[in-house]
Amino acid sequence: LTAPERIRVELGSRSYYVWIGAKLLETAGERIGAILPGRKAAIVTDTNVADLHLPALRTALRGAGVQTTEIIVPAGESSKSFSALQSVVEAILAARLERGDFVVALGGGVIGDLAGFAAAITRRGMRFVQVPTTLLAQVDSSVGGKTGINAPQGKNLVGAFHQPVLVLADTGTLDTLPKREFAAGYAEIAKYGLLADAAFFAWLETNRAEIFAGGAARVRAIAEGCQGKARIVAADERETGERALLNLGHTFGHALEAACGYEAARLVHGEAVSIGIVLAHDFSVAEGLAPPADAERVRHHMTAAGLPVRIAEIPGPPIPAEEIMRHIAQDKKVVRGRLTFILTRGIGSAFIADDVAPEKVEAFLRRQLAA
Amino acid sequence: LTAPERIRVELGSRSYYVWIGAKLLETAGERIGAILPGRKAAIVTDTNVADLHLPALRTALRGAGVQTTEIIVPAGESSKSFSALQSVVEAILAARLERGDFVVALGGGVIGDLAGFAAAITRRGMRFVQVPTTLLAQVDSSVGGKTGINAPQGKNLVGAFHQPVLVLADTGTLDTLPKREFAAGYAEIAKYGLLADAAFFAWLETNRAEIFAGGAARVRAIAEGCQGKARIVAADERETGERALLNLGHTFGHALEAACGYEAARLVHGEAVSIGIVLAHDFSVAEGLAPPADAERVRHHMTAAGLPVRIAEIPGPPIPAEEIMRHIAQDKKVVRGRLTFILTRGIGSAFIADDVAPEKVEAFLRRQLAA
Repeated sequence: LTAPERIRVELGSRSYYVWIGAKLLETAGERIGAILPGRKAAIVTDTNVADLHLPALRTALRGAGVQTTEIIVPAGESSKSFSALQSVVEAILAARLERGDFVVALGGGVIGDLAGFAAAITRRGMRFVQVPTTLLAQVDSSVGGKTGINAPQGKNLVGAFHQPVLVLADTGTLDTLPKREFAAGYAEIAKYGLLADAAFFAWLETNRAEIFAGGAARVRAIAEGCQGKARIVAADERETGERALLNLGHTFGHALEAACGYEAARLVHGEAVSIGIVLAHDFSVAEGLAPPADAERVRHHMTAAGLPVRIAEIPGPPIPAEEIMRHIAQDKKVVRGRLTFILTRGIGSAFIADDVAPEKVEAFLRRQLAA
Repeated sequence: LTAPERIRVELGSRSYYVWIGAKLLETAGERIGAILPGRKAAIVTDTNVADLHLPALRTALRGAGVQTTEIIVPAGESSKSFSALQSVVEAILAARLERGDFVVALGGGVIGDLAGFAAAITRRGMRFVQVPTTLLAQVDSSVGGKTGINAPQGKNLVGAFHQPVLVLADTGTLDTLPKREFAAGYAEIAKYGLLADAAFFAWLETNRAEIFAGGAARVRAIAEGCQGKARIVAADERETGERALLNLGHTFGHALEAACGYEAARLVHGEAVSIGIVLAHDFSVAEGLAPPADAERVRHHMTAAGLPVRIAEIPGPPIPAEEIMRHIAQDKKVVRGRLTFILTRGIGSAFIADDVAPEKVEAFLRRQLAA
């Protein structure tokens, strides 16, 4: 068994460690006990994850003398709602947890966002621990402190910045993950190479098959992704500047997800990000900013990873350019009528463009859809 | 017309000013426009306050070129609920306010707590302005950044620390306030003298009638109260230490409010605080900590202000000591089984006692109730 990797997210008095490796569920009691001795915990999870991983975490915490309460919500995005939030908060209070106790989020991004938000607002802020069980959550949502729920007006429009005190990314939980979900999470890993680390992207090109197979390469890929995110979050915790880089591929991606009515059968988040990343590179090429060969490498790599790279690959009715534009305009990254996109000068050289003309984007999308 | 007073709440990059004086509603446009030019605002208020003060604020904001949306909730404590929170958040989003826009809380403590919390979680944090219209809100809840709603398990158990960017306390709004509500707010002003400023308490003893009559003495009393709170909040924004001093009278007070089922006809918050402050002084005397003459001065002053000072003065069925103890035990200031009380060595010399034995408190209450 390889020793786990440890990444520090540097945020002054709110700094914390992300551990990545095998058997972290089984040893969770020691690591949590080291920072929160003698506390009670509320474990928030969903119906699917509870069957797979709750017994191991429960045993580990109880073995370390932590009293636990379990709060199980329905699996799926619909749990990112006010009503689920209310039920989690009231369950934490009913279990008589005090402000010094903590909430554990055991699951994917939905659980991390929901439980983290509940921890942020219960007693005006309880500590929480992320135990992400999907690749997407391990490299993305569990690091950085964004928590929240959805509103009728859009996803993640209600929430808080609330950093965890510890993240335990047990790579063993990925063994039960469907291949499609693993690939979706992989799109976010590749993103960190494309943003600011060309050498890491080249390493991913060489090691993709090993990463999908598991073992040391997988742990390293996740750790590098977390490190990439940790660096950006440390520089800009509340997304007033540089943190917007993390949205590479996300403006297009979110619009495509919305256009699909968030139907997972058609498109999951990581797949939308894959198409969005390729579109961001193609648009950068079309604007004369990036070399065409770089966009080609990105397209090739995502395809090899089993990810969609074109809008036309999305199953179901075709999505017209106007509809994508409408969703882009509703996106929260619209600042006073101008579009903000993450564009690139090539692999590893992404940047924030905050004055992109909507007409150019729409014309680009029309050309893509006609191709 | 006396020039308004201005108090600075010193919190680094989150510092802000509290203005206290007449005609601040009418001039709100200039002061808000000076810090948030070109922004849109959502005004959150209740059905009662809307009739009295919304037209003046609306006119002032529009006159300064601020686009406004109005969100009106039912008056009363029942609006500090998840369902009211959801409706305010969704109304802000439906009005298409962006992260740089702001929320204005126009009303008493309920509106400030609800609108402030909605601002804290909408788009993970919008700016907000407090325009408190009750004395209690002007000297207490509008300063310091505590926002939140109630849960079935207790009041204010769900919320966030979210500082306003500006507080406008228009003393003209107090002219429409019922005498009983004015007195209730006065209890919190007196608290600041009792906590740490014996000279201010002596000034209150001399000027009480003028403060109740209005004019310059009233403005000064409110400004001194805000200054007292600002000093403590600046030293301990998130209540990890000294800020607990603000709870002088509140542990007993909250328990009495709960025992009355939060029926305003029996007891409002400031009245509960008045009785609680007197009990805290009497208990400190009983413990040999404070001189009996100081407790007597406090009792005399509160009585002269038209406030209740004994549990037996509360109308309705008598409240037994066991019931008060049960509510104290449920209070969030219980830390790992020990009771935390704010006790005093005399007027202006309160301190945090974090290991008070419940048996002593219960015996004290029994003696009070038998007297």
